[in-house]
Amino acid sequence: MNILNSLQWRYATKKFDVKRILPEEKIHILTEAFNLTATSYGLQPLRLIVIQNKELQESLVPHSMGQRQVADASHLLVICIENTIGTAFIHNYFENVKSTRATEDSVLNPFRTQLIKSFDTKSKEEISLWASKQAYLTLGNLLTVCAAEEIDACPMEGFFPNKYDDALDLKSKDLRSVLALPVGYRASDDPFAEFKKVRRPIKDTIIRL
Amino acid sequence: MNILNSLQWRYATKKFDVKRILPEEKIHILTEAFNLTATSYGLQPLRLIVIQNKELQESLVPHSMGQRQVADASHLLVICIENTIGTAFIHNYFENVKSTRATEDSVLNPFRTQLIKSFDTKSKEEISLWASKQAYLTLGNLLTVCAAEEIDACPMEGFFPNKYDDALDLKSKDLRSVLALPVGYRASDDPFAEFKKVRRPIKDTIIRL
Repeated sequence: MNILNSLQWRYATKKFDVKRILPEEKIHILTEAFNLTATSYGLQPLRLIVIQNKELQESLVPHSMGQRQVADASHLLVICIENTIGTAFIHNYFENVKSTRATEDSVLNPFRTQLIKSFDTKSKEEISLWASKQAYLTLGNLLTVCAAEEIDACPMEGFFPNKYDDALDLKSKDLRSVLALPVGYRASDDPFAEFKKVRRPIKDTIIRL
Repeated sequence: MNILNSLQWRYATKKFDVKRILPEEKIHILTEAFNLTATSYGLQPLRLIVIQNKELQESLVPHSMGQRQVADASHLLVICIENTIGTAFIHNYFENVKSTRATEDSVLNPFRTQLIKSFDTKSKEEISLWASKQAYLTLGNLLTVCAAEEIDACPMEGFFPNKYDDALDLKSKDLRSVLALPVGYRASDDPFAEFKKVRRPIKDTIIRL
């Protein structure tokens, strides 16, 4: 399939095949793709929770507006933001640049100092919002990777992050849940699979200058 | 290339080949992929500006922290949010569902009423933020599509949206610019193309439960 066929093939899966489990090779692709996502300044203020545990998945259904996909999908991915993005986090990033590329401190330090200063002037809410936007960017990448790999998925904003954070013990990891993505295989009788895609006409969404 | 190789191949292009122009077939893929992006409730609160005009691109460089990619790339894409997402916009969406899928009003009306009510209680700022998050999701999709199609790209938050809105006359279209994406082909002497990718170790970013 070419990439447009893949994007046509994907849909927000409403009913998963509870019996089909994604092979480990596909989970490897999703986790690597998550980690390869472009992020603002390259800082990666994110972590991915990969859940394959029916009991835990089932316990999250009531915190997900009753959406069964959370339990029925092969795996549930939860995109989280780091709670604390400050001097230590940014410093670690630059140490990583240094060891990966053998870049001299004298080259890195001006940008390092500037970035630390810039984050220092931002409020906790501003930093959370910035990180959340990177979570959405990551979801966009993952959805397209799923489509290319013929993995069914259902992107979800409709859940209670605080309840997820408690159930997954995210506070102890200094994380907050932002987006959920059940992944697996569509059930053969999901009627939504056959529905025509609804999109604004391209003449209304593209402006060429 | 498989999708992980594609994601490894991509990088934030710092220097474009000013002489190479993307063929119309690639622009078709990017515009269709834009329109196929999944969005919250399927509402698509977005439009894409596709600029292929050196003079206009050049005029945007000073509003882009001097980043030459804006002018040197084959095309400049600007992801915009709709300024007015209210009853009329949501109503149009449901009319589109109705005509695309021949769904009865009796089936659509409960969700239509609920969605209109829900947006009615949100502030202009809340709606802008919601739409902006969809712009990031779209950028994530587009970056991965670019990678799959071997189109070079440089995702940009670092520009002055108000200046872009003026230069592109976006107010008259009731739009606001959120993200920019120069696309084209890397210059053969862009040193950044050879740099090793810096990423957090996967053991630090993935948690399996």
